[in-house]
Amino acid sequence: MEPRDLAELSQPSDAKVLLLVMDGLGGLPAEPAGRTELETARTPNLDRLLREGGGGLHDPVSPGITPGSGPGHLGLFGYDPLEYRIGRGVLEALGIDFDLRPGDVAARGNLATVDDDGVITDRRAGRISSEAAAPLCERLDGLEVEGAEAIVRPVKEHRFLLVLRFSERLEADLEDTDPGREGARPLDPEPRTDASRRVAGVVRSWLEKAREELAGESPANAVLLRGFATRPHWPTFPEVTGMRAFAAAAYPMYRGVARLVGMEATTVEDGTGPLASALEEHFDAHDFFFLHVKGTDKAGEDGDFDRKVSIIEDVDSAIPRLLEAGPGVVLVTGDHSTPARLERHSSHPVPFLIWGGAGRTERAQEFGETGCAGGAYGRVRSCHLLPLTLARAGRLAKFGA
Amino acid sequence: MEPRDLAELSQPSDAKVLLLVMDGLGGLPAEPAGRTELETARTPNLDRLLREGGGGLHDPVSPGITPGSGPGHLGLFGYDPLEYRIGRGVLEALGIDFDLRPGDVAARGNLATVDDDGVITDRRAGRISSEAAAPLCERLDGLEVEGAEAIVRPVKEHRFLLVLRFSERLEADLEDTDPGREGARPLDPEPRTDASRRVAGVVRSWLEKAREELAGESPANAVLLRGFATRPHWPTFPEVTGMRAFAAAAYPMYRGVARLVGMEATTVEDGTGPLASALEEHFDAHDFFFLHVKGTDKAGEDGDFDRKVSIIEDVDSAIPRLLEAGPGVVLVTGDHSTPARLERHSSHPVPFLIWGGAGRTERAQEFGETGCAGGAYGRVRSCHLLPLTLARAGRLAKFGA
Repeated sequence: MEPRDLAELSQPSDAKVLLLVMDGLGGLPAEPAGRTELETARTPNLDRLLREGGGGLHDPVSPGITPGSGPGHLGLFGYDPLEYRIGRGVLEALGIDFDLRPGDVAARGNLATVDDDGVITDRRAGRISSEAAAPLCERLDGLEVEGAEAIVRPVKEHRFLLVLRFSERLEADLEDTDPGREGARPLDPEPRTDASRRVAGVVRSWLEKAREELAGESPANAVLLRGFATRPHWPTFPEVTGMRAFAAAAYPMYRGVARLVGMEATTVEDGTGPLASALEEHFDAHDFFFLHVKGTDKAGEDGDFDRKVSIIEDVDSAIPRLLEAGPGVVLVTGDHSTPARLERHSSHPVPFLIWGGAGRTERAQEFGETGCAGGAYGRVRSCHLLPLTLARAGRLAKFGA
Repeated sequence: MEPRDLAELSQPSDAKVLLLVMDGLGGLPAEPAGRTELETARTPNLDRLLREGGGGLHDPVSPGITPGSGPGHLGLFGYDPLEYRIGRGVLEALGIDFDLRPGDVAARGNLATVDDDGVITDRRAGRISSEAAAPLCERLDGLEVEGAEAIVRPVKEHRFLLVLRFSERLEADLEDTDPGREGARPLDPEPRTDASRRVAGVVRSWLEKAREELAGESPANAVLLRGFATRPHWPTFPEVTGMRAFAAAAYPMYRGVARLVGMEATTVEDGTGPLASALEEHFDAHDFFFLHVKGTDKAGEDGDFDRKVSIIEDVDSAIPRLLEAGPGVVLVTGDHSTPARLERHSSHPVPFLIWGGAGRTERAQEFGETGCAGGAYGRVRSCHLLPLTLARAGRLAKFGA
């Protein structure tokens, strides 16, 4: 069901909704037939929520597909990540807390090195340090081009964000200028559609100015751009659900995706204490709360099985306090799997539980991958979790008479 | 996820992939609460692959839909059979090893009988024997028409294949000339779109020539055409997956569908020995191997429960040799169910197992319909099996950042 369809069905309810995301929650057993991180963790509170509610597994994007953080969260917010795509330039902006406006065109930039003939000798300018890159980005920021305001922000090492701010929404379907390899020249930002010609022209002017600005510099004397994208114009989460939505996260990417769908987002210190405080503080003024725990994903990417276990246990011990705030329905899950054994995001489906409202009898006893594989909800796509949760909150009217 | 999307994610890996298809694998218990063919078979090797990997059930097309062989295999190759449709004329060509070219328009033909007024008295010319049909097809082959080369090949009994070979790709959305009943006249191959007018004109010329050629013959003095179709122009399997793909099958239909998506296909004798030899011989030069076992389907269609059991056991005993060739990931399944009890294809979901790479703990102990219904993969659509398999082979990059 599309967000627009859901909007037609949304109705008010006293039940407020808490979405608690442990990033990269899903895992793998350390040895064959063993227990995953979540199955190893002692989680008496989550187990109780599962037994009183219901559980299952969700595929963040589609079976077999490993999601990035952007698509992973969009799915949890009810937007099918295969339909609602975020361009790379926009993701880059979200990742550094850059507030995109409707007329903005964003691209991911690389500081690079070219020889005297303009041939690329290093696409990352020797992985120039963030410190050395900062003054170069500062010089690129605010270069004057006709038709748009040009903004540059450093990201990390050789990476930067370019935003061309136009006075109106424009199409920006352009080829990357990064040829993806050394030994070639930077490419032209060729428009793939007629409607993208205007933006292409401004990008070309900016590239010329940037070339002049960096001429003779070392190690970075050129820029490469890719992933041109405009801020998407989607039905917002509050429009779709009728809920005033609040997000708390320590990392910019997650606040960024939440803001992209119209949530109010706040920066908190990482950890369950600050998240619980944010929930309590904003409880009265909002109806939906997205709390983001990053530690599980980081421990997974570090290959640290035990630390992932202990962060999950920490989240479990915060559950009573979170419930005390008074949410009527709670959805606990991850945006994807990050098994410590693989040290990266993976395609394995993610366990979830929904607590509150009316549900069937749950036979699973423990919140974990194996239990949830036989859970009352079975296996669903991530974008179905929002309607399932709203249903338990009494927030969806009948479809058809 | 569409093949085009998958192509964007595909990345190289050392893990080669084996797809072992037992045609019509899914079955039904001979008596209520009994065991299916697969559950009756002793399959220690397949059981081990299931326990070390994971299993589930797949719906070849959509729940409740009984697939033909074409859609059944397209799904296993990762093409959603509801989106990627093969016209009947093309299927007829695949079934007799006819190599279609891009400008070809194919139709299924019937030799038929009409009376002096041109009214159909027998749509199948008394089910004329293949022997009697052959010389008539030979006379129809090569009839001269303006605008295309006209090729006719006998299929079986009254059935033949007509291919009109044009020098360019053309649209061929035409009405059947077969009215589907006796007592009516053959219909005009009316174009359903403006763009199909050119092909319609050539078909009409050919029909006139055919009428003249068969005038006065007995029992077949007319032809009926249906299922006009052009060779589809899809992203190929090697383009989508980045794998050099090899197919081995004893029957033309399966080689034909494999070739249609760009696999290299070889004819082998039926049976596991020749399939294993083909795998060994082609292992170094390819990355993906589709081996097709026909016997299970034939035994099912013959209603021979015991023979289907023994063919499955024969395949099981070949597993160690297939593994020795060195595939990193193995998918074992069927293209549909052919329960001996029904003596035909059925809509029941099909058990599958995926072995190799990283997976969760599988609780199912035996490879069979009942075990797989509670398997780690749950129930998926057939077109999701390819991404699930590629994921285990490490052949898919992250979707979105």
